[in-house]
Amino acid sequence: MEKKGIKVVTIGGGSSYTPELVEGFIKRYDSLPLRELWLVDIEEGKEKLEIVGNLAKRMVEKAGLPIEIHLTLDRREALKGADFVTTQLRVGLLKARALDESIPLKYGVIGQETNGPGGLFKGLRTIPVILDITKDMAELCPDAWLINFTNPAGMVTEAVLRYGHIKKVIGLCNVPIGMEMGVAKAFGVDHSRVRIDFAGLNHMVFGLNVYVDGENVTKKCIDMLANGEGGNDPKNIKSIAWEKEFIKALGILPCPYHRYYFKKSEMLEEEMEALKKEGTRAEVVQRVEAELFELYKDPNLAVKPPQLEKRGGAYYSDAAVRLIDSIYNDRRDIQPVNTRNNGAIKGIPDDSAVEVSCVITKDGPKPLNIGELPVAVNGLVQSIKSFERVAVEAAVTGDYNTALLAMTINPLVQSDTVGKKILDEMLEAHKEYLPQFFKKEQ
Amino acid sequence: MEKKGIKVVTIGGGSSYTPELVEGFIKRYDSLPLRELWLVDIEEGKEKLEIVGNLAKRMVEKAGLPIEIHLTLDRREALKGADFVTTQLRVGLLKARALDESIPLKYGVIGQETNGPGGLFKGLRTIPVILDITKDMAELCPDAWLINFTNPAGMVTEAVLRYGHIKKVIGLCNVPIGMEMGVAKAFGVDHSRVRIDFAGLNHMVFGLNVYVDGENVTKKCIDMLANGEGGNDPKNIKSIAWEKEFIKALGILPCPYHRYYFKKSEMLEEEMEALKKEGTRAEVVQRVEAELFELYKDPNLAVKPPQLEKRGGAYYSDAAVRLIDSIYNDRRDIQPVNTRNNGAIKGIPDDSAVEVSCVITKDGPKPLNIGELPVAVNGLVQSIKSFERVAVEAAVTGDYNTALLAMTINPLVQSDTVGKKILDEMLEAHKEYLPQFFKKEQ
Amino acid sequence: MEKKGIKVVTIGGGSSYTPELVEGFIKRYDSLPLRELWLVDIEEGKEKLEIVGNLAKRMVEKAGLPIEIHLTLDRREALKGADFVTTQLRVGLLKARALDESIPLKYGVIGQETNGPGGLFKGLRTIPVILDITKDMAELCPDAWLINFTNPAGMVTEAVLRYGHIKKVIGLCNVPIGMEMGVAKAFGVDHSRVRIDFAGLNHMVFGLNVYVDGENVTKKCIDMLANGEGGNDPKNIKSIAWEKEFIKALGILPCPYHRYYFKKSEMLEEEMEALKKEGTRAEVVQRVEAELFELYKDPNLAVKPPQLEKRGGAYYSDAAVRLIDSIYNDRRDIQPVNTRNNGAIKGIPDDSAVEVSCVITKDGPKPLNIGELPVAVNGLVQSIKSFERVAVEAAVTGDYNTALLAMTINPLVQSDTVGKKILDEMLEAHKEYLPQFFKKEQ
Amino acid sequence: MEKKGIKVVTIGGGSSYTPELVEGFIKRYDSLPLRELWLVDIEEGKEKLEIVGNLAKRMVEKAGLPIEIHLTLDRREALKGADFVTTQLRVGLLKARALDESIPLKYGVIGQETNGPGGLFKGLRTIPVILDITKDMAELCPDAWLINFTNPAGMVTEAVLRYGHIKKVIGLCNVPIGMEMGVAKAFGVDHSRVRIDFAGLNHMVFGLNVYVDGENVTKKCIDMLANGEGGNDPKNIKSIAWEKEFIKALGILPCPYHRYYFKKSEMLEEEMEALKKEGTRAEVVQRVEAELFELYKDPNLAVKPPQLEKRGGAYYSDAAVRLIDSIYNDRRDIQPVNTRNNGAIKGIPDDSAVEVSCVITKDGPKPLNIGELPVAVNGLVQSIKSFERVAVEAAVTGDYNTALLAMTINPLVQSDTVGKKILDEMLEAHKEYLPQFFKKEQ
Repeated sequence: MEKKGIKVVTIGGGSSYTPELVEGFIKRYDSLPLRELWLVDIEEGKEKLEIVGNLAKRMVEKAGLPIEIHLTLDRREALKGADFVTTQLRVGLLKARALDESIPLKYGVIGQETNGPGGLFKGLRTIPVILDITKDMAELCPDAWLINFTNPAGMVTEAVLRYGHIKKVIGLCNVPIGMEMGVAKAFGVDHSRVRIDFAGLNHMVFGLNVYVDGENVTKKCIDMLANGEGGNDPKNIKSIAWEKEFIKALGILPCPYHRYYFKKSEMLEEEMEALKKEGTRAEVVQRVEAELFELYKDPNLAVKPPQLEKRGGAYYSDAAVRLIDSIYNDRRDIQPVNTRNNGAIKGIPDDSAVEVSCVITKDGPKPLNIGELPVAVNGLVQSIKSFERVAVEAAVTGDYNTALLAMTINPLVQSDTVGKKILDEMLEAHKEYLPQFFKKEQ
Repeated sequence: MEKKGIKVVTIGGGSSYTPELVEGFIKRYDSLPLRELWLVDIEEGKEKLEIVGNLAKRMVEKAGLPIEIHLTLDRREALKGADFVTTQLRVGLLKARALDESIPLKYGVIGQETNGPGGLFKGLRTIPVILDITKDMAELCPDAWLINFTNPAGMVTEAVLRYGHIKKVIGLCNVPIGMEMGVAKAFGVDHSRVRIDFAGLNHMVFGLNVYVDGENVTKKCIDMLANGEGGNDPKNIKSIAWEKEFIKALGILPCPYHRYYFKKSEMLEEEMEALKKEGTRAEVVQRVEAELFELYKDPNLAVKPPQLEKRGGAYYSDAAVRLIDSIYNDRRDIQPVNTRNNGAIKGIPDDSAVEVSCVITKDGPKPLNIGELPVAVNGLVQSIKSFERVAVEAAVTGDYNTALLAMTINPLVQSDTVGKKILDEMLEAHKEYLPQFFKKEQ
Repeated sequence: MEKKGIKVVTIGGGSSYTPELVEGFIKRYDSLPLRELWLVDIEEGKEKLEIVGNLAKRMVEKAGLPIEIHLTLDRREALKGADFVTTQLRVGLLKARALDESIPLKYGVIGQETNGPGGLFKGLRTIPVILDITKDMAELCPDAWLINFTNPAGMVTEAVLRYGHIKKVIGLCNVPIGMEMGVAKAFGVDHSRVRIDFAGLNHMVFGLNVYVDGENVTKKCIDMLANGEGGNDPKNIKSIAWEKEFIKALGILPCPYHRYYFKKSEMLEEEMEALKKEGTRAEVVQRVEAELFELYKDPNLAVKPPQLEKRGGAYYSDAAVRLIDSIYNDRRDIQPVNTRNNGAIKGIPDDSAVEVSCVITKDGPKPLNIGELPVAVNGLVQSIKSFERVAVEAAVTGDYNTALLAMTINPLVQSDTVGKKILDEMLEAHKEYLPQFFKKEQ
Repeated sequence: MEKKGIKVVTIGGGSSYTPELVEGFIKRYDSLPLRELWLVDIEEGKEKLEIVGNLAKRMVEKAGLPIEIHLTLDRREALKGADFVTTQLRVGLLKARALDESIPLKYGVIGQETNGPGGLFKGLRTIPVILDITKDMAELCPDAWLINFTNPAGMVTEAVLRYGHIKKVIGLCNVPIGMEMGVAKAFGVDHSRVRIDFAGLNHMVFGLNVYVDGENVTKKCIDMLANGEGGNDPKNIKSIAWEKEFIKALGILPCPYHRYYFKKSEMLEEEMEALKKEGTRAEVVQRVEAELFELYKDPNLAVKPPQLEKRGGAYYSDAAVRLIDSIYNDRRDIQPVNTRNNGAIKGIPDDSAVEVSCVITKDGPKPLNIGELPVAVNGLVQSIKSFERVAVEAAVTGDYNTALLAMTINPLVQSDTVGKKILDEMLEAHKEYLPQFFKKEQ
């Protein structure tokens, strides 16, 4: 990496999350000398890119730092010589997400935009685009790290690990940080005093051990959870309490998304009702986003507005900058990321992506060894991994049968007939973003 | 084993299946010299034991063979010096099965008497009894083989492997034979020309490769299945056709029970309707059984009546005799049984029971190596294994929380709250057969 | 395979073993209708090919069977439409073997023509030739099975599995059969009543369990071995007795070649002395061969002469025909062969060759599951596997450093400096057969 | 752990290493408040204990710290309420080591006091004593950590992991630190800038990757080694240069002890010569120790004398204090220690000890995931692990045959007959320290 400072490229730069990213870079400037931040977007996102890019420029200026902010629609131009590339793009925008969530519900199935049928379609749309980015990277910035926070982050990371044109990829998620913050809050301590041994998959991650000041407080933490304390669920998941006896027998810390599998009927009911009352989560987010962009336009605003934290993805961007800082400085601190398993979790293929606590080094993340997952959760984790692997195959090949297989084996679906109906309607709805499935018909 | 012939003990000897067992022994008498068959039952089953035992005696007499048939309620007396012990008992009788099936349906959940909530309770009732039998065996016939065909056969086998007092246990199921017969019928060939490489768990077994006369016809077989041909579903599972594209992408032969996971909504609907029309499967079976016992009483009957084949468990008993014959004669032929995994299927614990094609020797079954299961089905198989392992823990410890954990992680349930309701109602309903859960309260 | 009979191609057809092969085909003609046997050799072997080929023709004629014997130097012509290809070639002939054995001895190291420095060089010479054959096969007889009995059979099989142009390859060795015959002799029973569970690598195979008539007699067998009974060592390995306490603690049946690792100093001494007295084993074999070919020339000879059994490789060719017969007839009997591990032995890579008991089917060998090797032998087996894998890399790449690495990690060498001396002298000595190491220098 | 400071017990406290340990505690007093240091020894070591104990007291006094130094022969008294227990004992003293090294040499075999026949006997003597200590600990200080630096540290750690009465055990070695220092010296940088990914077993550890300032310099480091630069061999191992081509093909950093396996003949020759010239290494050490104790007696000496660094075990004690400090303070820094594998290195049993880079936490060491070892070294590592496991069995059972098995499979021995001679002579020589082998004869 350049001694004179690093070059970061953010694809999907017009996202509402970008101010948090910029704030993160400003905060860490002393250790992480950012020289250039390139915000890249596509034609349809041009207006948002301008708004958020101008805010970024004002933030940097206010901080008095010599960071160049570049706004561009030319991805290849931006990638040249980059040190880090972050991806926060959304193929098909929030409109597509609304379909991901609402179509399955029509058939009595939770959409779930990462590990459910919705996530399958988000993956089918996103993976080809990300693989394309890795192709450009291999040519234009072969030594750069790709930090992906586009969902489904696990599936996308796995796709890059197995089919990408580069090797240096890390998938990032804010769920583990949220779990740490929940524990911190419950124990009434600062976030920095909490450590969790994370293991699992993206949005399917467990806290195997929880520590406060190095003391193992897992049992206490589970007891709190059993008593309805200590949760810190993100905005997008309804915080329904666990059955006390279940959580005690589980004995490890679930993530909020586990409700889709351990409280499936309750979550389905909740989503059905929410759909009636306030539309899909995507529609809620669209409204929040519209408000945010109104704020961002204000020429007097030169900081990240506090309203951004209401958005589901809080801490995402800050986590990204923290990760970049640890790589750049070879910090060897421990952070949970999505990376190649290589035997860290027993029973998951070596070449699959897992979400585990890793030592973050200049040479990339080095997973801590996990060994066997607790038997009670191994099956579910393996189910989602089966789903992810078949889904990646479908995304790469554009094969209809493979897509139906992925859909059917998903634990939220479990019916080939219902799955086929959902698949057919969704394929049609997302047609323009799924060329791999349609070009062959011509 | 005795040179002068072997001693076989059948626990649950009053079962309606017994005539098939006796027929099997008669057919194979030349290679398998049965000296004594002890039919053991409990007080409540005394009448049935008499009926079926007398039929057995008439069958042997008609065959002109010097086989002694003993009827007894004294299990320990029977076990002394046995060479083989078969278990076909049913704790709580068909009444209990009716509850296993109907209570979950009240909460919109399939009961499924092996791998579902019903199977959990069948396991909770049965495992302590079987472990008790192994205790007697260790004392009274330590070299005997236990051939278990009591369901849930996988869970029971696993319990004996991990907690039993003997090592020589084999779990047996008629599902694989049924799959072979289905293929034979579809290809219009004799059963003996069909071979299938089986791998998975009990009632969760797949045919990885299908051969006719040694030729690998898997693809052709899948195509037939995709066209709705080639099924041979047992009486107890509605034969709903697979989606063509799904089965082609799956690429391996599912077993009939896979419909509970790959056609869950259709199966649930079907069970709901059947319940209304004809009661639970248990109730249907009760009627069939009543009719069978009426037939058995006929003093002129001295053969297995053809009506027995209508019962779901056809071929079970014959499979048992075939297995005993192969062990006794060290035949080294290949049969699918439930045995210790020991690495045969990658990713499943060494000490767990799996259902795989095995070479059957005097030294017991030796699994063929399977390696990794196809990725698309690995997750589901692992889910059921997780369920089985936690269920066995619950059966052995009588721990409420562990039972709730098993219930919740079952792919048919997936809700701690719904699971708790089912659990509570079922615990109460089966109270008298679950001392391990209740004695502690006293 | 052709209904009208099969076509077999034997590369290295001029070998002295061929009459046994022909005898094997004649004996099994009823079940294995051999239509054509093509004996292929190279220019230098033309004379021997004529001699042995004419004997083969006389044998077939005497048996009155319509088997065509073809003699040719045109390998590609022979391969067209073959059903089975057997390889018994020897690159560099026995002259090369003499160097393989004698050069290492100069440096105080056992040569050992399979798993030692000699085997390394035999592999370096042979692997490129075999890979070339697989290339022809992929083009000319893509459905044929390659049955390799050229040593080092394990290394060659691994090379084909990982770098070959075909998938259907089986490595064959006569060591396991010899072990079975030794047991049969010791127990005074017919060979057919003995079964051994084999596991390990070629010339590094163990009998994990020994059965006579299905009874597990392993302990008794070990006790016999401890008392100096029961061995059946091949002609080429001096039968030095095991220390009683060692073999009892080992608890499993070693193969004769294990003496190179468990009696290294004694074997080295023995080889040193033998070298002085009678030259290398290769030289002994050369004399035996010369005598055999004299016999073969006799126009009145029309059977396999009994003298052939004195040759080290007895039963090799018969084992090959037995294997071909089991494949052709889908016999599903159990034979020990070298095949892809695929998890059968825990801890050995999936894509490596192992020598294990397999069910032999029309679809190829299916290994029985082994699980973990006994801890005491796992290390040695892994050492040889490490050596084999690095040796294959060296053979394929022609990289000097990799060859030195293979040499140094070999348990018989264990010195980079001594290894380098041996390597350099052997590379020079075998120069003409190692183009991959020398072409680059030009 | 006590807020008012920690209690450390050092068994074998009369060792010449103790001043380094004391120095380490003094240096780190600010972060690691040592309240009491108990130096424990046996009757025979009383005089040395006094000498070294008094030096320790003077050191503490000079430093002006309120650390209590206790000298005692009563181990149980010392252990009460300890926070950390370190073991640096030597059963049979240096006299025994001299035998460990010289007896095998008589038979042309390297003694090697950790992974060779010498190490086997050191293990047989030491393991029962250490297991006894763990029994006392379980009773008297169940929450304490056992930090073992008695050799053979890998074998001892494995014995405690599998047969000990406590779970909190860590094995420590100075070899990895020495490797880091060698790299630091070669690159001309401070030790703190060097990081190595360690994996393997004790005295059989490799540096898989080498970093300076986070940059991966492994290739450069190997090139330096190939050119004879960069070594930093301990005093006790002759620094014979690697063959350039070998080390390049190896591609990872060996430890000095690897010379016993990759330069066996040279090391044997060297040991033979050294024995003639200066006696065994043990005798050399005895002389160094005598000199050290003379120095320690000086009442004016109140610091660790520089001469101590000449002793082979330099940095051992400092490493121990660094480790204790990281545990106490939950530092989560990375240190190489011997701990339970649990899948960190693929192919080594979960319950075996491995030497790997670990994150050091208050909850103990958490290994980084390694995955598969490079194929070229996997065999050797597995061989030593086989040896260690069988050796531990022999130590625990006192079974002669098992001891002979361990001896024979050791890569330095490889002959049951030679092994038996060495075994018999060593058993006799160490008789008084091997009650488990002799009591049964009475």
